[in-house]
Amino acid sequence: MVLSTFIAVAIAWSGPGMRAPVSRVAGAQMVAADIAVGVKRNPNMAKLQAGYLFPEIGRRRNAYLAAHPDSRPIISLGIGDTTQPIPTHILGGLEGSAKRLGTKEGYSGYGAEQGVGDLRAKIASKLYNGLIEPEEVFVSDGSKCDIGRLQLMFGNAVVSAVQDPSYPVYVDSAVMMGQTRPVDSATPQGQHPGIVYMACNPSNNFFPDLSNTPRADVIYFCSPNNPTGATASREQLTQLVQWAKKNGSIIVFDAAYAPFIKSAGTPKSIYEIPGAKEVAIEVNSFSKYAGFTGVRLGWTIVPSALKFADGTPVRNDWNRVMCTIFNGASNIVQGGGLACLDDEGLEEISTLIDYYLDNAKLLRETMEALGFTVHGGADAPYIFVDLKGKSSWDMFSHILETAQVVTIPGAGFGPGGEGFLRLSAFAPRAACVEACERLTAMFKQ
Amino acid sequence: MVLSTFIAVAIAWSGPGMRAPVSRVAGAQMVAADIAVGVKRNPNMAKLQAGYLFPEIGRRRNAYLAAHPDSRPIISLGIGDTTQPIPTHILGGLEGSAKRLGTKEGYSGYGAEQGVGDLRAKIASKLYNGLIEPEEVFVSDGSKCDIGRLQLMFGNAVVSAVQDPSYPVYVDSAVMMGQTRPVDSATPQGQHPGIVYMACNPSNNFFPDLSNTPRADVIYFCSPNNPTGATASREQLTQLVQWAKKNGSIIVFDAAYAPFIKSAGTPKSIYEIPGAKEVAIEVNSFSKYAGFTGVRLGWTIVPSALKFADGTPVRNDWNRVMCTIFNGASNIVQGGGLACLDDEGLEEISTLIDYYLDNAKLLRETMEALGFTVHGGADAPYIFVDLKGKSSWDMFSHILETAQVVTIPGAGFGPGGEGFLRLSAFAPRAACVEACERLTAMFKQ
Repeated sequence: MVLSTFIAVAIAWSGPGMRAPVSRVAGAQMVAADIAVGVKRNPNMAKLQAGYLFPEIGRRRNAYLAAHPDSRPIISLGIGDTTQPIPTHILGGLEGSAKRLGTKEGYSGYGAEQGVGDLRAKIASKLYNGLIEPEEVFVSDGSKCDIGRLQLMFGNAVVSAVQDPSYPVYVDSAVMMGQTRPVDSATPQGQHPGIVYMACNPSNNFFPDLSNTPRADVIYFCSPNNPTGATASREQLTQLVQWAKKNGSIIVFDAAYAPFIKSAGTPKSIYEIPGAKEVAIEVNSFSKYAGFTGVRLGWTIVPSALKFADGTPVRNDWNRVMCTIFNGASNIVQGGGLACLDDEGLEEISTLIDYYLDNAKLLRETMEALGFTVHGGADAPYIFVDLKGKSSWDMFSHILETAQVVTIPGAGFGPGGEGFLRLSAFAPRAACVEACERLTAMFKQ
Repeated sequence: MVLSTFIAVAIAWSGPGMRAPVSRVAGAQMVAADIAVGVKRNPNMAKLQAGYLFPEIGRRRNAYLAAHPDSRPIISLGIGDTTQPIPTHILGGLEGSAKRLGTKEGYSGYGAEQGVGDLRAKIASKLYNGLIEPEEVFVSDGSKCDIGRLQLMFGNAVVSAVQDPSYPVYVDSAVMMGQTRPVDSATPQGQHPGIVYMACNPSNNFFPDLSNTPRADVIYFCSPNNPTGATASREQLTQLVQWAKKNGSIIVFDAAYAPFIKSAGTPKSIYEIPGAKEVAIEVNSFSKYAGFTGVRLGWTIVPSALKFADGTPVRNDWNRVMCTIFNGASNIVQGGGLACLDDEGLEEISTLIDYYLDNAKLLRETMEALGFTVHGGADAPYIFVDLKGKSSWDMFSHILETAQVVTIPGAGFGPGGEGFLRLSAFAPRAACVEACERLTAMFKQ
């Protein structure tokens, strides 16, 4: 095969000291490739029926705005995105670590893939009271990313179980990894064959009936829950750990919303449950605590006691995955994480949490006053509104069009979310108040 | 199964406003789990014979130090880790974007998973002269991480080809993804069955003999090359693109060292080659340019014209992967990326590149004066020293023990790297000078 045109295309890097581009393309056209790429699309990617949930919400929001350019501003109670500025002490940590990179003494390049030693130690001591060893803490750029890497570690031969509804990343990443079969006519609506869906709804107080649940290798469990806002009690988590032990399963416990728990006695970590270190990984994040949704910092705990069936410590394989396809969280951002865990930082986080929980209370009370049955919103930043059988995507559109408020349809979190709507408490207070007014005007009889 | 002890373990989050821990563990012991975890270890993880290369180098370095506590300081010409402070203008971009997060107006949470629009546009215009559209640019936390995600997108049914020697992440991540078979007695030393190894050595001027290379689905190709320091010419890259077109392959072109190219006419991007947009993905990084090895910022180009065999744009699946298991590069870090691409930033980068290239020249000339045959080090920050058949791990140890200089054994980059040693030019100048003195004292006849 001979290309019919040969064009010297210039690439810039045109700063002083770099050679100037050799030539420039001017209206040159390439002939179409005469041989198509022969690489087959990964069939697992094709199993995903729709785009990832949150970009899809953004797409619908933008489509509404394009069609209604004169709309009043849209208020988002959609994606759980923090809106309050980063407080002073924590900000100082971020700025300080950035500034140090400009000095000869303070500059640092590649860090340990597992995170800065001080931060691992501080997470272990300040957040886990020393129950977890520093070497069991792996710092990362966030839980979403860690869940993707966990799937790569587990491989495609495991069976995964999820709460239904749940954060869509567990299922989507399991599908991408090849843990599921293609959807066929026998597949229940909205499910992926091969995933164990553990129904969580008002009838079981949002905790699955484990006596009736098939065994899975990996059990994704989130408390406080996204999207339902339910928190699992100590008794429930004990049941979960015992069930995992009985079945030889690994729990991936998502504790990203743990500090929103205010009720005494409700566990903030799976490791509060005896024996959990032998069966559970915990993923966690500074995103919602410290306003780090865009800053990107999280961590995953892989206890040394956790072992695969052949005796290989899970921690070894996790370490290998992290070293090979991750290069550590940003050194600037880890400086912010250290500041978060100073006393001043923890106090600032506490204030932020209280702010968002007050929003949650407002949203919850408003929806209740409008006659809706409402879940969550007490020890969690999400309110889960029962639509009494109505379609959640229809209600999403109806509220967007009538009140110009973005919510998240429960169906986006799995089939078990149909008939519910998730409201996020992460909006600024004024936006929250106005959203409540708009919803009241819309729904008041 | 009943747990014999039930311990209320306290988890902190003990900032003011948060409930105090319920109780504390005092010397409590868990009984050993009586049922082991039944989850089978992912067999692909077991196919990796050794730890990831660079931590292994660090381990050996630390072992030497532990055994020789009175050793003079070790000089690292090992991992390609930048050592010069981040220059003023770029630092200002990082600090400024951190500072803005502390203000109501400047705060931002989740950004687009694909990166800030301004940065995507600036990469397209400043680095690719508009040859690439902004929507083809995906900003990330680095190339290493993107290579891991690319493997997830491609899946386990593709055949991957690599230059031998090459950056170990291509092969290791392919193995993790399940693209290879277990090593058996018929496997050539150091290879993974299922990977196409394209020998690159002095006999072929470090460019593979494509007429003799089996077809692969995905071809990883790095120029300027890590570890050999070789750069592919326009003619060679044209050959590569034509070969990919003929075979229906996808090239993953790793251009992380592109701005080190000073020779006129040598392409800095695969897209300088006509037709490349229909067959090539390009991964790239700010790490080596701007001293961002610890800051973490890179990008991947997936042209809209690149399609899988069934016509699905590769870009669609890449976007789905990025949205699902990635949450965008840190907003602070992206502010630094924007500053890099200002004229002042490009000038600062150019100065940094010149600094490291002067180190490379020094190392190259020193090794040549000592009688070694040396490759690379001209348009690349790596010097590849021919050991004339000697074991590279032995030479690594010998130099560490005699000169207290860390290098990287070529064998760590694949079987084709055996008999070579990689020296990195990223050390500070004074360290480079002293390393040259120590090597001269060691090797001078």
